[in-house]
Amino acid sequence: MTAAVLTATVSSPESVARAADPSGAPAEAGWVKSTVEQVLPGVWRVRFGTPERFTPAAVRESAPRREGFELLPPAGPPPFAPETIRGRITRSRTAIYVPCDEPGEEIYGFGLDPGAYEQKGLFKHLTVCAGVVGKTGASHGPVAFYVSTKGYGIYVDTARVPDVQVARLTPNDSASASTDTSAGLKTSERDLYAARPAHGRTEVLFDLPGNSQGVDVYVFEGPTMREAVERYNLFSGGGAVPPLWGLGLKYRMLTRATEASVLQTAQSLRAMNIPCDRLGLEPGGQTHADSCSFVWSKERFPDPAKMTEQLRQTGFKLNLWEHAYINPSSPLYAPLRERAGDFLVWGGLVVDFADPEAFRIFADYHESEFVKQGILGFKGDECDRQPPTDATPFNFPYCSIFPSGIDGDQMSQLYGYLYQRSLFTAFKAHNLRTWSDVRATSALAAPLPFNLYSDAYTFDQYLRQLINASFTGLLWSPEVREASSLAELLNRVAMSAFAPQMCLNLWFMPHPLWEQYDGPKNKADQLLPEPEQKVVAGQLRTIINQRYELLPYLYSAFMRYHNEGLPPVRSLLLDFPQDKKIWNEDNAFMFGDNLLAAPFLGEATTRKLILPTGARWCEIKTGKWYAGGSTVTVSGAPGEMPLYARENTLVPMAEPVQHVERDTVFRLTVRVFGSKPAPFTLFEDDGETFDFAKGAANQVTLRWDPKQGGTVQRTGNFPGRRYEIVGWKTAGSPGE
Amino acid sequence: MTAAVLTATVSSPESVARAADPSGAPAEAGWVKSTVEQVLPGVWRVRFGTPERFTPAAVRESAPRREGFELLPPAGPPPFAPETIRGRITRSRTAIYVPCDEPGEEIYGFGLDPGAYEQKGLFKHLTVCAGVVGKTGASHGPVAFYVSTKGYGIYVDTARVPDVQVARLTPNDSASASTDTSAGLKTSERDLYAARPAHGRTEVLFDLPGNSQGVDVYVFEGPTMREAVERYNLFSGGGAVPPLWGLGLKYRMLTRATEASVLQTAQSLRAMNIPCDRLGLEPGGQTHADSCSFVWSKERFPDPAKMTEQLRQTGFKLNLWEHAYINPSSPLYAPLRERAGDFLVWGGLVVDFADPEAFRIFADYHESEFVKQGILGFKGDECDRQPPTDATPFNFPYCSIFPSGIDGDQMSQLYGYLYQRSLFTAFKAHNLRTWSDVRATSALAAPLPFNLYSDAYTFDQYLRQLINASFTGLLWSPEVREASSLAELLNRVAMSAFAPQMCLNLWFMPHPLWEQYDGPKNKADQLLPEPEQKVVAGQLRTIINQRYELLPYLYSAFMRYHNEGLPPVRSLLLDFPQDKKIWNEDNAFMFGDNLLAAPFLGEATTRKLILPTGARWCEIKTGKWYAGGSTVTVSGAPGEMPLYARENTLVPMAEPVQHVERDTVFRLTVRVFGSKPAPFTLFEDDGETFDFAKGAANQVTLRWDPKQGGTVQRTGNFPGRRYEIVGWKTAGSPGE
Repeated sequence: MTAAVLTATVSSPESVARAADPSGAPAEAGWVKSTVEQVLPGVWRVRFGTPERFTPAAVRESAPRREGFELLPPAGPPPFAPETIRGRITRSRTAIYVPCDEPGEEIYGFGLDPGAYEQKGLFKHLTVCAGVVGKTGASHGPVAFYVSTKGYGIYVDTARVPDVQVARLTPNDSASASTDTSAGLKTSERDLYAARPAHGRTEVLFDLPGNSQGVDVYVFEGPTMREAVERYNLFSGGGAVPPLWGLGLKYRMLTRATEASVLQTAQSLRAMNIPCDRLGLEPGGQTHADSCSFVWSKERFPDPAKMTEQLRQTGFKLNLWEHAYINPSSPLYAPLRERAGDFLVWGGLVVDFADPEAFRIFADYHESEFVKQGILGFKGDECDRQPPTDATPFNFPYCSIFPSGIDGDQMSQLYGYLYQRSLFTAFKAHNLRTWSDVRATSALAAPLPFNLYSDAYTFDQYLRQLINASFTGLLWSPEVREASSLAELLNRVAMSAFAPQMCLNLWFMPHPLWEQYDGPKNKADQLLPEPEQKVVAGQLRTIINQRYELLPYLYSAFMRYHNEGLPPVRSLLLDFPQDKKIWNEDNAFMFGDNLLAAPFLGEATTRKLILPTGARWCEIKTGKWYAGGSTVTVSGAPGEMPLYARENTLVPMAEPVQHVERDTVFRLTVRVFGSKPAPFTLFEDDGETFDFAKGAANQVTLRWDPKQGGTVQRTGNFPGRRYEIVGWKTAGSPGE
Repeated sequence: MTAAVLTATVSSPESVARAADPSGAPAEAGWVKSTVEQVLPGVWRVRFGTPERFTPAAVRESAPRREGFELLPPAGPPPFAPETIRGRITRSRTAIYVPCDEPGEEIYGFGLDPGAYEQKGLFKHLTVCAGVVGKTGASHGPVAFYVSTKGYGIYVDTARVPDVQVARLTPNDSASASTDTSAGLKTSERDLYAARPAHGRTEVLFDLPGNSQGVDVYVFEGPTMREAVERYNLFSGGGAVPPLWGLGLKYRMLTRATEASVLQTAQSLRAMNIPCDRLGLEPGGQTHADSCSFVWSKERFPDPAKMTEQLRQTGFKLNLWEHAYINPSSPLYAPLRERAGDFLVWGGLVVDFADPEAFRIFADYHESEFVKQGILGFKGDECDRQPPTDATPFNFPYCSIFPSGIDGDQMSQLYGYLYQRSLFTAFKAHNLRTWSDVRATSALAAPLPFNLYSDAYTFDQYLRQLINASFTGLLWSPEVREASSLAELLNRVAMSAFAPQMCLNLWFMPHPLWEQYDGPKNKADQLLPEPEQKVVAGQLRTIINQRYELLPYLYSAFMRYHNEGLPPVRSLLLDFPQDKKIWNEDNAFMFGDNLLAAPFLGEATTRKLILPTGARWCEIKTGKWYAGGSTVTVSGAPGEMPLYARENTLVPMAEPVQHVERDTVFRLTVRVFGSKPAPFTLFEDDGETFDFAKGAANQVTLRWDPKQGGTVQRTGNFPGRRYEIVGWKTAGSPGE
């Protein structure tokens, strides 16, 4: 026996620290000096050390959309110089300290966050997570980006799981003796400590454990939160452009659907006159808790190409459910076996999407086997992570090994993002747009046409996520599954109708939603009486028609998202950042530029609402005008979406169609609100391809003058026509 | 504007990874070869890289208790060679892979874990935590040590927060092409990947994020779990030795107690003939959610020294509540201000206990201000961490900076441990033992005389923690606070009577427990009718008397803990590791060597129990014998502890006393179970100091022969006498 281990073990107080660091390595911690560079108009990069190899920026979908920056107002400087952001790099972590003005500032963002709207004073643990973990920001889309009411945004480009202290810690004043950060890495702990400036409640602190190299921090200038968000989204590459049909209803079938049941459902929807553009299904070569084969079940779908074509002819586009854990029976298994993580999930490979070859193999397969066959969307499930409270999670561990060299925690944060990118690649190769689903994403996701969704089903969280998503370039799909009452069902459907994606998800219900909205009863074949079914179907039709009425309006908002980075469905604060009365209003949102939507939650049919200051508002249903800043109580029937038009705007509304095709022409009535409405520009193109980027698009500008009435001006090179203006309709003027 | 940031951002698939690592640093990951060394009999150290400066072993209380190893049976080798433990060290983490035999092995340990007993197949997140987080092992005492039914233990010496995958992951077989770990750190990712051997379900995986240097792993040999645990505890320094009075009842007073109310309670306890040795109180220079001043409140305690002495004369020893966040008003603030973390908690300093000088200052203050004044214990609160689900935790962040150079995550894991050590130092300086309380601890804690406690109050979790504590050298105090019924109250008190510390905690109840056990009613001065109070007091007295009857027996078990590492209150598996029928029995335990206790949970007065195979068992209450391996149903009154004596053992039982003093002599009746009982050795000393370690102790060996009756043999150099044998009492023999 040797005593090597025992020499350091004495019981005197002095034994609390080893006398000397046995590694002879440098001090545990050190402040480093940043290098600051303006990389785009109003975008500053603050670099600490050497950024890690795998970050959202390093694996991003798109280059920044430079031309978009020219459409924005001139940048307003943030209330601090980028140089005042501080950073420390140690052997265990990188920590970033961003100034924050204590009393007069509120903070928003951090991704899809279901639990919190106002972020100041909170601790965030920004991990990809399938569940809701209080207000910690764990979500399907955690993003290390926030905006401040002072009119700037901060993005920390990391694929580690950041712990963020949002201006909440109280510093030990003894630490504020010096603010010297100029001398670079300190070489003794005493020096390091002496050099530590004041921080804490007046800073937002990002802790990036496992990052021992460095990080890029980006500052996005305003002048308001709106422009900071726009700059972030343009930096990400600009917003995703949906196919026009993608904004129509998605109806997701039962897990074990068959060709017969799919065709039957398609027929029912048309027979019931319920508008629908998309059907979702599971091709069947996989089960929910097993890995994926990525092949159709021969029993359930004997001729998928024929079925796909048959559905397409009646206006249905198919979306296939899958997840990216590759079953040994899959054709993808052999080519990806050596390009996967060292652990399986549900017996399937975890694809090393950070390996360009694995990324390509996965994309190519989806292109040749599905996109070529007419499949127009995917639902990429299970790429998120189970909550840290689960003792038997199915996740791959943070210490997983991947051939590309990416760490397991980085891959866990980026898996959904890279998975989307690979699927998107399959569509882009065919010059086709998609409007798809995914369970997890990361920062810089704006250009990806994937909607996040969740198993969590709490109504107010659904709404909060819808609004929070708009701060960080995410799309959120508050899926409607079951409901405990008709009122709740209709209110849920109404909320979904005003989301980036409208979706009824019947994955565990064998019968159409209108035949039974109670999940267990639907499963047990206990259907509503037929007359009641007709009533429910009619009510669903009404709500879905409203969605289709607004399709051209919403589509145009998405083009603005693409070109200028302004989210189409967004927090009121992006339009009214100065209105302190609504700083905590997380239950209403802007739908496009001109409509404010204030959903009824749960079974409610009445609610209160603070209308933002800075505009007058016309209640669509009644034509009644309200002053900005007023608190109104609105009542209605279940399934109604209280809508308010902003004064001096135009809102084109279409006659509903049953589905959207390349040759669909929308017949529009332009609603006029106020006497001096701003022009409204519709975006016109084929609605399906990327040809618009090469110029095959029109701007259809609507103008209204009280004396001359409405005019339509069309510019651009797209030869087709999508919009026919059939009328103009004024609302009573405010104050009249 | 420069384009530096944009050069890497293209939208082709190849952009998923930067073409070249910009840092030019070595590959992200690499297997390293270990160095294996036997450091004690049956203890192997497997070293990977260079261990970090701050680990439990580096700041340990005690050197290993070498002499104890000679008392153990010869070591039995683990079912794998220490060399087969594998390790990887990267810039972000160290990962350790320990072999585990899939089908025939179960695993126990990981600290105080309230959620899980059998650990195989679980994911553990071993963070210090005040709440219960499912089965993840987050607890007041998370410990990276486990034992296996195959008869060995594994300890990973880290102060990082380990994620542990306990033999649950399925490896990607493609990874098993090679098992070459001999070549040291790989220099390319491709090499690294090719060299990766099979692992997963047949391994226990420790992920140590933030440790980029290396770690020591220790293997403790058996031959059974019992010896593996003993070796671990001896490696830790041997078990804590309580003062004899420390095993008596602790009665914790109301938060805002005063000198008058304390003296009044002391008087009541004596008047009611309720045995009690210890009173706990808050000195009042602090409030619950504020930092501590470490001075007595002048209003409430005008003359603490006098009060302490007055109480001492009636047999009460004082325990003071506090926590280690130093208020600016404290005399400790100035000397510690520069020796604290960079953030405050509740406005108070976070002491840098890893700085030997801060450690000493804190200990010295407690010695001169409290221990010298007769204070004999402390309750060190709030040194744990709030659950990761809390968005506004009071914790200091993981990226905190401390002058000593310890990281915030390491300090968070070690804060309770180092705090205890500092307090214990104050007692050792006075040659006084203590029996104290603390809210958090770490590995290698066996020598520390501090009992863990919790705000969580679920009955079955209390019991599971009591049992789990025994696998990893922890003491657990299932405090009794309020109860919803008399039955539940009495069952809780009974459980506490069989714990390392017995404690009634009335911190929020102004009246004695027997006057009202319903918390809100007690607070609202709604007391029980007086006759009922007397009944309750009588029932409490009965249970507490039973504790005092067993004091000499328990004290002797603690000396065995000290000398041999065998926990006095422990899992049945440490005595019957081969009995698969009880592998999941987490509701009964050994109390000392000879008694099995099987508590009634909740309000129950009947329960089932599997008696371990390998012994026959005598039910103490009835004298009835049961075969080992039989399932028995036991019934009783609330507050009864079903007790079973193991065949062929002796159990000395004392006449209860009201309190224990240096000159207390226990009058013992020796209960004889079976016809060939093994001798029993009582430990005899002053019960208060460390003089026993210098030889001032006796071994009092009791023997019984059916023909010759009982004999008492005393050896040793302690001149006093603590035990008088007044009788021997046989139970019916088994099979008669």
